[in-house]
Amino acid sequence: MIKKFTFGTPFQTDAVVTQIPSTSEAFPYFQIHQENGFSLTYSMSGDDVVYGLGENMRGINKRGYRYISCCSDDAHHTEDKSSLYAAHNFIMISGDNCFGLFIDCPEKLTFDIGYTDYDTIVISTDSVDMDLYLIEESSLKEIVHSFREMIGESYIPPKWGLGYQQSRWGYLCEEDFNEVANQYESLDIPLESIYMDIDYMERYKDFTIDEKRFPHFETLVKDLKAKGIKLVPIIDAGVKVEDGYDVYEEGIQKGYFCKDKDGKPFVAAVWPGHSHFPDVLNPEVRAWFGSKYQCLIDKGIEGFWNDMNEPAIFYSEEGLKECFAYLDSIRDKNIGIEENEGLMNAVMGLANNPKDYDRFYHDIDGKPVVHTKLHNLFGYNMTRAAADGFDKVDETKRFLLFSRSSYIGMHRYGGIWTGDNCAWWSHLLLNIKMMPSLNMCGFLYTGADLGGFGADTSYDLMVRWLQFGIFTPLMRNHAAKDTREQELYQFKNTSYFRELLRFRYSFLPYLYSEYVKASKNSTMLFSPLGFDYPEDPVAVHTEDQLLLGENLMIAPVYTQNAIGRTVYLPEDMLCITFSAGEKRKMEVLKKGHHYLELSLEEFPIFLRKNSFLVLCQPSNNTESLNMNALEVIGCSDGSTMTYEYYNDDGYTKDISLDNASLITVSKETGEWVATSADDALSFYEITIMEC
Amino acid sequence: MIKKFTFGTPFQTDAVVTQIPSTSEAFPYFQIHQENGFSLTYSMSGDDVVYGLGENMRGINKRGYRYISCCSDDAHHTEDKSSLYAAHNFIMISGDNCFGLFIDCPEKLTFDIGYTDYDTIVISTDSVDMDLYLIEESSLKEIVHSFREMIGESYIPPKWGLGYQQSRWGYLCEEDFNEVANQYESLDIPLESIYMDIDYMERYKDFTIDEKRFPHFETLVKDLKAKGIKLVPIIDAGVKVEDGYDVYEEGIQKGYFCKDKDGKPFVAAVWPGHSHFPDVLNPEVRAWFGSKYQCLIDKGIEGFWNDMNEPAIFYSEEGLKECFAYLDSIRDKNIGIEENEGLMNAVMGLANNPKDYDRFYHDIDGKPVVHTKLHNLFGYNMTRAAADGFDKVDETKRFLLFSRSSYIGMHRYGGIWTGDNCAWWSHLLLNIKMMPSLNMCGFLYTGADLGGFGADTSYDLMVRWLQFGIFTPLMRNHAAKDTREQELYQFKNTSYFRELLRFRYSFLPYLYSEYVKASKNSTMLFSPLGFDYPEDPVAVHTEDQLLLGENLMIAPVYTQNAIGRTVYLPEDMLCITFSAGEKRKMEVLKKGHHYLELSLEEFPIFLRKNSFLVLCQPSNNTESLNMNALEVIGCSDGSTMTYEYYNDDGYTKDISLDNASLITVSKETGEWVATSADDALSFYEITIMEC
Repeated sequence: MIKKFTFGTPFQTDAVVTQIPSTSEAFPYFQIHQENGFSLTYSMSGDDVVYGLGENMRGINKRGYRYISCCSDDAHHTEDKSSLYAAHNFIMISGDNCFGLFIDCPEKLTFDIGYTDYDTIVISTDSVDMDLYLIEESSLKEIVHSFREMIGESYIPPKWGLGYQQSRWGYLCEEDFNEVANQYESLDIPLESIYMDIDYMERYKDFTIDEKRFPHFETLVKDLKAKGIKLVPIIDAGVKVEDGYDVYEEGIQKGYFCKDKDGKPFVAAVWPGHSHFPDVLNPEVRAWFGSKYQCLIDKGIEGFWNDMNEPAIFYSEEGLKECFAYLDSIRDKNIGIEENEGLMNAVMGLANNPKDYDRFYHDIDGKPVVHTKLHNLFGYNMTRAAADGFDKVDETKRFLLFSRSSYIGMHRYGGIWTGDNCAWWSHLLLNIKMMPSLNMCGFLYTGADLGGFGADTSYDLMVRWLQFGIFTPLMRNHAAKDTREQELYQFKNTSYFRELLRFRYSFLPYLYSEYVKASKNSTMLFSPLGFDYPEDPVAVHTEDQLLLGENLMIAPVYTQNAIGRTVYLPEDMLCITFSAGEKRKMEVLKKGHHYLELSLEEFPIFLRKNSFLVLCQPSNNTESLNMNALEVIGCSDGSTMTYEYYNDDGYTKDISLDNASLITVSKETGEWVATSADDALSFYEITIMEC
Repeated sequence: MIKKFTFGTPFQTDAVVTQIPSTSEAFPYFQIHQENGFSLTYSMSGDDVVYGLGENMRGINKRGYRYISCCSDDAHHTEDKSSLYAAHNFIMISGDNCFGLFIDCPEKLTFDIGYTDYDTIVISTDSVDMDLYLIEESSLKEIVHSFREMIGESYIPPKWGLGYQQSRWGYLCEEDFNEVANQYESLDIPLESIYMDIDYMERYKDFTIDEKRFPHFETLVKDLKAKGIKLVPIIDAGVKVEDGYDVYEEGIQKGYFCKDKDGKPFVAAVWPGHSHFPDVLNPEVRAWFGSKYQCLIDKGIEGFWNDMNEPAIFYSEEGLKECFAYLDSIRDKNIGIEENEGLMNAVMGLANNPKDYDRFYHDIDGKPVVHTKLHNLFGYNMTRAAADGFDKVDETKRFLLFSRSSYIGMHRYGGIWTGDNCAWWSHLLLNIKMMPSLNMCGFLYTGADLGGFGADTSYDLMVRWLQFGIFTPLMRNHAAKDTREQELYQFKNTSYFRELLRFRYSFLPYLYSEYVKASKNSTMLFSPLGFDYPEDPVAVHTEDQLLLGENLMIAPVYTQNAIGRTVYLPEDMLCITFSAGEKRKMEVLKKGHHYLELSLEEFPIFLRKNSFLVLCQPSNNTESLNMNALEVIGCSDGSTMTYEYYNDDGYTKDISLDNASLITVSKETGEWVATSADDALSFYEITIMEC
């Protein structure tokens, strides 16, 4: 049951796809204050758990901190940060009352969830224009389902988007890309794609290729594709100001860039220095910007990542002027405590300065609207532009697409990666905790920069992170310039990485099937344990284990030098431990806490009772992967088990669960057999443990 | 068995107090490389655990990362940092070989402990002058014992240094201090001292008091002392350049400041702007600087904290010139990726710039030695100056003294706090893990800024942090300017904080006794479980539980929204859970893993079999605490138990374990009774559980 409450005159974000009339009922549960902006206050009971907020810091239970929906380019996600790259304004309260709330408002919003006062939620914003959607259902799962149906089906990538992907900011030329491909090939380690960060462009100009460093770009794309490896270029939000650069010239001529207060194109600086932002909130501009991707598609590209689209601003001209004025004012002084702080603030405050967001305007139906009012929609609409552009090129084909910045609604057009994390063990744990929150908000195609983007990684961190990354749909190893090289061949022991990636590919039948079902059925791919075991307080408060699809639980190791970890089983489960040498150990474990010994090269998975997993033979890319010949592994008390298995060609857009196959596993004359009405499927091995 | 190996001509740091002749034997275990500096290489086996390094990032097991001994003023301890404020060059390797190694070298040292290569330790430095002490004993405990005997007894604070202490950067005037005292008093929450951060000084000048803001300083000190509350002022390393300021004038006149390459006093900027560093490596200067503390002692002060003594440098004049030259070079450009990075680096690189440490010199026996060569000794010798100065004032009295920067050797003169941490849950865990490492290196009087110094704390973080802080000798709540106010009375629910502090005071008989014994016997107050249970691999790899003294184990909760945690018991133990309302629950638990339910206002302690804890009635300060009337709580299989209990007046320096009292607890005619030859002791309650 969803009710919509409208306040003021909200901007139509298109986050919601179903038509829901606004109710005139009083808004329940919360106290509303409408002086100096808008705020909602809710009193929590001691045991209330709060879920949601998608891409964010802290735990699955968001209680005890404040979160600010204000898409931010901040690469340093320490615990005290309140804003990441996205604005996902959906929360669920589970306690005396149980409901979901989506605040459809593109302006900055603050969620104080028991931070200022441990028992009080205060949601506040300067805006007075918003739609509130209150979702009341009988369970958390049902609330998510209703919400997700309301916001529409999540983006489904081409199957190759679930392969292992390698990235690094710093690949400069064709040789660098060939080197990556060759190294993986020579070590027989799977590789699906290589990412092109900003250096492939000519002077960081969108939709250009530096011809000096990439003299045979199309050949490169083609040759790598022949090896099953795709190139995925980056596209940035800012368009370089440069005479003669076609995108710039055309944007200027058509008036497609965001304007300053005088109606001139707003100058913000990013990688190329002075740049303009395409006004992607305007449908005409969106169509224009989206059409630009075709020049790379024509060269064989099938996927993109949109970056810097919060939008990130290194400085504005006005901001820079203010900064230098301050520097001049102190340069001949005895700089003490105050001036020193002033100096740091002046320079560090240049980037992503909120004042700059007041300095430019969007053209909304012919009227200028200051960016601050619509800030959180920029990345969303840049990505929507790309997706619409792809449709114009080939409406039957799935392209790979994900974005750094996002807003709910964008989940229909592409995925997100969780932004510029660090090679910190705590960011591996953050990655684990963030997955279900992202799923709640519709973002299924997602994952973190494995191994860490900033800071130097280490062998053991890379191993443990990949032991989790093999389960995330977006599985990309990405690192920043000037950090330790972390392509898997850079480490002394590569054989274990090869094994982990082989596991990933053998796991794709289950992952792909569960992914598509989660999108089509508006369910979660990664769930907190409490969603399936709401009456079990230990399950509800377990944040370092996740349910993955309908049958699986995972419990990654995320601490350095650990030789094991404690796992909580909310019911009896089959534990399969994978060890170096592609060995498996299977054991049925009882409900309760278990300490598992797990050396660095071991990880466990857990299968729920009377369920099974489908695996296939590994391969080095999805193209050569046979997802029709399956292994079945599970545990049963003797009952017949079924699984709805979805598979397809991996690239056409026409996806229907009507094409899924029911696999039945039953015991017949003492032997477990797997059958399906789908003749394409075969089963090469069946292992069912008694439980 | 300790062997000393001398390379080059080491500077005599006085870290070691026993005379050990250098051996001419070959240095074992490691490969030595002496080209381009000095390096030691060691091959680890898969299971090797590495301990030590005192104040540092990461775990108790230091494996898997690199650590750089280079005292650094860096308030942002993210996981990728390699240097904190101290240089504690002592490690122990536990595996195929088991030994300790102390590298007595005051220059920057890098410990790559399985970071570049997971199985290799490389210790490297530019220096070629050092003493290496190799310590081989039959166990880790014995190695620590030998090492600690070699470096001399750890500082013992006055007893009031174990009370609860309140601090904040931002108390500006007398009213602020009275306000803190009154708030604690009115809520009946224990309080032992209030810290005076930099704002008490006149324009940040050491050994001055701002008379406008503190017109009745001596009265303030006296009035608060009458309430059992002491004031503890900060002293900074940098002396302000200001004509007419006596410390400055005298230092200039006597040539006591560090010099630049031209022999002029080196100008570094810190809080007051331009400043000079007293050359505390010179004994004459040390005596001079140490004598300065007396002006505050004469006003009733009995304790100090030494800060900014890495030494921190905001900028040097040369560094600032270079920075502004760079800024001028880009100011009229289209600042793109390179210049933007340059701008950030220029400004962020001003502070603690390694180049500045090459720009000043110490007078060592009449010869200038560049600071870089002796960098890690500055904070040590500033604190040694203070301690020597106190001795001159009253050689029989213990003063409170701790420092931010330190080197092994300084542990004899004062304690350390663990520097400018943040209000992060991960820093609570870091605090837990750091304690045993600090103890190994001799630092017993230590603790973290409870609640977190930087960033905004929250009620639940403060609660969980105090649940650990009640066990650390230095128990201080400290926060930075511009963060959320975190004096305990700032929160809605103060009653639980009162209970926690009452527990602290009731716990002091055990804590004080164990502290003094650890100093006198060269043992550890906080130990990793693996030190007492070396054959138990789970114990060895448990890093979130600590042994505290000879009888106790603690297992703090350090995650947000947790309702419990798993605890590993390496043997049967008595678990006592403390709940709101000063309630206790006692239960004997078997060896193995246990999940304990622990609501926010609950924490457990664990007593080893056949041992007991002594507690006393709580009080609001140590002055009014009666540590002679004791409660006994423990568990026994029926055996008679003994405990060596040390207590004293709390301030005289004359400390001998000969004055300790043996307490015997035995079962007589079915009743447990406690007895001691010390008539001063009485026992008001005895609870012994059967185990």
